[in-house]
Amino acid sequence: MRDTPLLDQIRIPDDLRRLKPARLQQVVRELRAETVDVVSETGGHLGASLGVVELTVALHYLFDTPSDKIVWDVGHQVYPHKILTGRRDRIRTLRKGGGLSGFTKRSESEYDPFGAAHASTSVSAALGFAVSRDLLGRKNHVIAVIGDGAMTGGMAFEALNNAGAMKNKLIIVLNDNEMSIAPPVGALSGYLSRLISSKSFLSIRDFGLNLGDRIPEPVRSAARRAEGIARGALSGGTFFEELGLYYVGPIDGHNLDHLLPVIRNVRDSDVAGPILIHAVTEKGKGYLPAEKSSDKYHGVSRFDVSTGKMAKSGSNVPSYTRVFSDALIREARADDRIVAITAAMPSGTGVDRFAEVFPDRSFDVGLAEQHAVTFAAGLAADGMKPFAAIYSTFLQRAYDQIVHDVALQGLPVRFALDRAGYVGADGQTHCGAFDIAYMGCLPGMVLMAAADEAELVHMVATAVAFDDGPLAFRYPRGSGTGVSLPEKPEILQPGKGRILREGTRVALLSYGARLTDCLAAAEELDENGIATTVADARFAKPIDQDLVLQLARNHEVLVTVEEGSLGGFSAQVVHVLAANGVLDRGIRFRPMVMPDEFLDQDAPQRQVAQAGLDGASIVKTALAALEKKTRKPGRRPA
Amino acid sequence: MRDTPLLDQIRIPDDLRRLKPARLQQVVRELRAETVDVVSETGGHLGASLGVVELTVALHYLFDTPSDKIVWDVGHQVYPHKILTGRRDRIRTLRKGGGLSGFTKRSESEYDPFGAAHASTSVSAALGFAVSRDLLGRKNHVIAVIGDGAMTGGMAFEALNNAGAMKNKLIIVLNDNEMSIAPPVGALSGYLSRLISSKSFLSIRDFGLNLGDRIPEPVRSAARRAEGIARGALSGGTFFEELGLYYVGPIDGHNLDHLLPVIRNVRDSDVAGPILIHAVTEKGKGYLPAEKSSDKYHGVSRFDVSTGKMAKSGSNVPSYTRVFSDALIREARADDRIVAITAAMPSGTGVDRFAEVFPDRSFDVGLAEQHAVTFAAGLAADGMKPFAAIYSTFLQRAYDQIVHDVALQGLPVRFALDRAGYVGADGQTHCGAFDIAYMGCLPGMVLMAAADEAELVHMVATAVAFDDGPLAFRYPRGSGTGVSLPEKPEILQPGKGRILREGTRVALLSYGARLTDCLAAAEELDENGIATTVADARFAKPIDQDLVLQLARNHEVLVTVEEGSLGGFSAQVVHVLAANGVLDRGIRFRPMVMPDEFLDQDAPQRQVAQAGLDGASIVKTALAALEKKTRKPGRRPA
Repeated sequence: MRDTPLLDQIRIPDDLRRLKPARLQQVVRELRAETVDVVSETGGHLGASLGVVELTVALHYLFDTPSDKIVWDVGHQVYPHKILTGRRDRIRTLRKGGGLSGFTKRSESEYDPFGAAHASTSVSAALGFAVSRDLLGRKNHVIAVIGDGAMTGGMAFEALNNAGAMKNKLIIVLNDNEMSIAPPVGALSGYLSRLISSKSFLSIRDFGLNLGDRIPEPVRSAARRAEGIARGALSGGTFFEELGLYYVGPIDGHNLDHLLPVIRNVRDSDVAGPILIHAVTEKGKGYLPAEKSSDKYHGVSRFDVSTGKMAKSGSNVPSYTRVFSDALIREARADDRIVAITAAMPSGTGVDRFAEVFPDRSFDVGLAEQHAVTFAAGLAADGMKPFAAIYSTFLQRAYDQIVHDVALQGLPVRFALDRAGYVGADGQTHCGAFDIAYMGCLPGMVLMAAADEAELVHMVATAVAFDDGPLAFRYPRGSGTGVSLPEKPEILQPGKGRILREGTRVALLSYGARLTDCLAAAEELDENGIATTVADARFAKPIDQDLVLQLARNHEVLVTVEEGSLGGFSAQVVHVLAANGVLDRGIRFRPMVMPDEFLDQDAPQRQVAQAGLDGASIVKTALAALEKKTRKPGRRPA
Repeated sequence: MRDTPLLDQIRIPDDLRRLKPARLQQVVRELRAETVDVVSETGGHLGASLGVVELTVALHYLFDTPSDKIVWDVGHQVYPHKILTGRRDRIRTLRKGGGLSGFTKRSESEYDPFGAAHASTSVSAALGFAVSRDLLGRKNHVIAVIGDGAMTGGMAFEALNNAGAMKNKLIIVLNDNEMSIAPPVGALSGYLSRLISSKSFLSIRDFGLNLGDRIPEPVRSAARRAEGIARGALSGGTFFEELGLYYVGPIDGHNLDHLLPVIRNVRDSDVAGPILIHAVTEKGKGYLPAEKSSDKYHGVSRFDVSTGKMAKSGSNVPSYTRVFSDALIREARADDRIVAITAAMPSGTGVDRFAEVFPDRSFDVGLAEQHAVTFAAGLAADGMKPFAAIYSTFLQRAYDQIVHDVALQGLPVRFALDRAGYVGADGQTHCGAFDIAYMGCLPGMVLMAAADEAELVHMVATAVAFDDGPLAFRYPRGSGTGVSLPEKPEILQPGKGRILREGTRVALLSYGARLTDCLAAAEELDENGIATTVADARFAKPIDQDLVLQLARNHEVLVTVEEGSLGGFSAQVVHVLAANGVLDRGIRFRPMVMPDEFLDQDAPQRQVAQAGLDGASIVKTALAALEKKTRKPGRRPA
């Protein structure tokens, strides 16, 4: 069906570089068609990849990759890059278990010098490569490709501020599609729009970068400065000029006649320091259903290429995200101090739906988790009830703000941690593994985990009611378990868990969504004559001491189960056991946590199994603990 | 000696506001003298406080504090603010145990609406207060005061980007002293310097903010835009204008004739959105020894007011920081891939001394921990051996970068964690409490803690030699223990601890600098006939399993001691005990960690005692564990 004769001849960029420039437009066409076809099978981040097809071809054509280093920011736009860099044969395994990652990944290819999936890291990493090159006397080029959304992340600014004061040559391509995941927010975005609209695209003869090259350095610096200011005044690129960058643009990022000469000139110029090429692109470019869609097919499931129609999700059960936003909307109708904050993930967090109902009480602060958290802290300090809805993995960006601005001041910011635990196709980089540990060590933090979507509803209500300090509740990615939702949410008592079934020999103490596996394991154990208690801790902090001690004292084996790293819930449990002398007498305590490794992408339930946190693994752990006991002389079970 | 008749009449800002403007200059003089005198007794952050005396007086004079909210960034410049806001009677307890905090602190005063000590948080918090005010229909003003150094932190940019796109009135005072802790670095700093030098200070008649106030909003917006661009072109303030801020300045921050009318006009204008007042100040202003000093008396010990001569530190023992930099310099002479990175703390981390020897291999990236870490990751990915020297507490800023850019990619970035554990006078906000927990949960991370300065030398050498993945080593603030330093550093075997003395009944397993307390405790226990083993784990990860199991199996009591939170070293130990069935048989395991609270400032050893981590507490813990045992029937000790 697809006809990609030219692309078929390109295995690696060397093959591309052998082509005459006139043939590149055909490569672009075929690469775009191949990308659409691939994602129609695999699902994934289509819109961003379609926006950088020309850019990808131009960069690999003009630079000597992999010796030259291209650092892609976020890394979700690299499907065309993967196709051109020796991975076309595996491209249809994208985001699948055992397949290619959906992002750049060092271990996957030498063409991926730096992996990414969180935003705004590329300029920092690229500056590292540039400095290293200069210290070691190498000659390779370093190119960072960063979107306008990622450019609003604080660390990108930190990197620009540092790079702009240094003399290491570094090429930064600002891939300005005026759209990251959601329409962009913030002042920088407005500035970029004005900048684009204020002038026509650069014509080639405007592009006199090489002019000053043979002039001695001091004179050249002055000339550059003067030229920079002049060009800035013309083009409006002064924001970047003021940060010490040599600004070039804007240029049409879908026009090879713009891209090739401009990038070649930048490559060959001997301007010291960072050069920023401002390329304007369109997300979803060249595939009509994507272009016409409001989200530009940012992240899609499998779809029909001819119609663009996406395969429906199999589940009728609402997602945790949806349940969260419904619950928060309900609470907010009754309490006008509730506000919701998202860091550039309105749809992913459900804050978009909240914003439809309460536009004045919802805040998309941009790709800026740090600011999101301290902004929430300011709101809380002034008496509001802010809900900061941020994925577990992205909240890592705001750790110091949680410690220093929220926990230390005891401010009642509510953290809604979506995507806690394994996340499936997004893999390692998005795994919400560490939040229980990194928040559990903070004094005064209240931590909850929802075992199912009904629990999530209770926890939202609890978070509204609890106004004495910071509080976080975690819930998984994807659909709920299908339980019916409560008519009236219950306000949970902090530090109190619940017992779901009572046994005598084994106690399974769950924290969060692995409760279903615990219940399944208990069934199986019961069937084998081992009466098993299952409890849901609900709170990791404050932890239900009575429950922990009761389970420990009245059972032969105590297993804790959490979809999180070592140092989290289990550490809280141990502290109770140690402080109460329970360990002194001996206890078959088996803390089940994530293994100490970053798991690759796979179906979530398979990741859970691979991690040894599924029902079968719980059964095995409990039996092994009992088995050990039966081997002890003189204490055989009845 | 001091003669402060006018200041003596001011207890709170209401008293200040009753004065005629003509008298304020005298208040400034007296307040400055008082500040110098106070810090000469207490030590502390003198330079920054002296730089904002006029600003402090002007703000409290013109705004209705505490109804109006002043949010001070970093909060170390607030001694004059504390003196004016009801705390003069306790100001000489500054930074002492039981005394005033050296920073803003919500629990200390209603005049401190938001506490700080880490940088760059003020605009985020202030925006929270501004939004809250507008949602609740209040009328108070919100003012953020932020230094030029703090302005380079990424989260300040995130906040500006967000605030610039919003309509909530917010006043931001850029306190530009061209100097944070060290001379400033980075492109923004260069821009601000050019901006100041390019024009004379604003004259009052330039300041036409109220002009457009009675014009309808659409017209006004256009006028503002035009006016903004025009003013930007004149003043060079376009960087801020482009981010949507109304820029006013620069003005002389030590001249009340500038400050008062400008701030009053800004206060009374009805410009929607953020207004930035660019005030130029001088750190150490008005006290000659400070003005003449290279660091402007940033942080000082007690000193003689007439001469400026500081009290000498009592110790001849080198600081850990000094030992670290000496060790790193030695290693770097032999290995030219070693580079050192600091985030605006060259002297605090010892990178300044490294930079004297290796100027090309040292990088002060500005107040930008996030960028520092990912920059280091880029360097490591390209084959360098980067040492990121960052205080434990400040590394919290870069947590996601540690997870996503370093650990996930297994890159050999070396983290030198200074100021681990309690830090004395800097108090809660600077306490290095959480690093063992927040790094211990990360796959592939190697974690060490230095028990003394000789160990630190070994660990630096070990970090150089270990090139297989990320590694961190922590060490305390202040002087070492006085042990002699090794002639030849030893490369430690990852995952191997050491036994310092062997006993039979109690095992003390230390991680880090509390080893001295463990040794003291062992002496005392031995004297009481309780033979005590002391071991130094050296590594929290990988942990020395053999050592842990041996200690657990051959002693009646196992105590772990660490100057860190729950979830850190002790969690690693428990995991070994549980996985090896040691808990099954019963073990008097006593994990000693920091208590679950933020401790106020005090002398470090008193903080350690208060935390229950000193020798006496260790003895008590061990005895209590043994005592419990003796109560058990049939197993009385001999």
